[in-house]
Amino acid sequence: MTPTITAFESSPDRGQGLARDMRVRWALEEAGQPYNVRLVSFKAMKEPAHRALHPFGQIPTYEEGDLALFESGAIVFHIAQHRAGLLPDEANARARAITWMFAALNTVEPPIIELQTAKFQEGDKPWNAERMPLIKDRIRARLDDLSVRLGDADWLDGAFSAGDLVMVHALLRLKPSGMLAEYPNLAAYVARGEARPAYKRAFAAQLAVFTGQAQAG
Amino acid sequence: MTPTITAFESSPDRGQGLARDMRVRWALEEAGQPYNVRLVSFKAMKEPAHRALHPFGQIPTYEEGDLALFESGAIVFHIAQHRAGLLPDEANARARAITWMFAALNTVEPPIIELQTAKFQEGDKPWNAERMPLIKDRIRARLDDLSVRLGDADWLDGAFSAGDLVMVHALLRLKPSGMLAEYPNLAAYVARGEARPAYKRAFAAQLAVFTGQAQAG
Repeated sequence: MTPTITAFESSPDRGQGLARDMRVRWALEEAGQPYNVRLVSFKAMKEPAHRALHPFGQIPTYEEGDLALFESGAIVFHIAQHRAGLLPDEANARARAITWMFAALNTVEPPIIELQTAKFQEGDKPWNAERMPLIKDRIRARLDDLSVRLGDADWLDGAFSAGDLVMVHALLRLKPSGMLAEYPNLAAYVARGEARPAYKRAFAAQLAVFTGQAQAG
Repeated sequence: MTPTITAFESSPDRGQGLARDMRVRWALEEAGQPYNVRLVSFKAMKEPAHRALHPFGQIPTYEEGDLALFESGAIVFHIAQHRAGLLPDEANARARAITWMFAALNTVEPPIIELQTAKFQEGDKPWNAERMPLIKDRIRARLDDLSVRLGDADWLDGAFSAGDLVMVHALLRLKPSGMLAEYPNLAAYVARGEARPAYKRAFAAQLAVFTGQAQAG
């Protein structure tokens, strides 16, 4: 059964691949799993039909037979559990890779999202310029630790895993800020993720939606 | 093999149960799994011995034989995967329960943490009073959706699961703000979580650390 995911009909980042469908596309590409995409408008996302799939009115969702999931981390995890290529087989290594997924989503990503919130939701506020360095320092506190742990390894714990996939994608949001460049090993880590053939295929697929070259599902 | 977790030696919330070891204690209690606790000071958390277990210098960690994990969501998930009582057996129901874990950690909790960050890290800033309503509105956007989805059900998707456990604990942080009271069904949902015998045992155990009644591991 070919799964169907949802993605933005109109890319908010103009095809930069920062929307969360990118994680799911990338995971599906790593697993060699073809998929269908149904594009949804900002309006349709908030309507009952979509909310039945996604209670928070967002993308991506994932449908496969009787199963409907939402939340990119959960979808990536589901793909990783059921298909080869994203989690190690050995039990302890597998648990550690899953740990990195949660760490990416709950420890590293939230301060990065705060930067975006400040920019897009409080960009016109008088305090914004003065707050920015505080937010960036909170992000640096995470990047400092992550950079130390990664050291000169290619990936966070042995072979590339779903943990790296989610972490790389969370870090990609920092690119416009220039902050990644402060951590050469993290910048190289992100670049290694972007260089993977599966990443490139996923990136091209989401870019094609923006440029109008996609086959809408 | 009895697992060992770490917790704050000195409770930052004076035993209110909001620290993230509470989630792990609760999950272990739901699973009927005895555990040891090693208390760590704020200073020791940032030292190499603890960072070898937790790259971000936080609690909780989880050690069981050769396995060492960090990140409360990952630990709760690990417990739920390997012991009965926290995830349904049926594959699709299980995937949906896991989805709620991710939704709690990556969609619902981050704006709630923003409120704490504003209070404790920016409480002395001139903009803080004016920003608070903006943060609260971002939290309400999540609570609105969550409240609609929960409706008059007891739990988010059928029987109580690890998804409810993490969600209830994320929502508990809102208690001091009074915001939960704006959503009677969410307040009742949280109260149902707190009424579970396993929650009560976990709460008492972490409170005993604060009151000095605990047996340190």
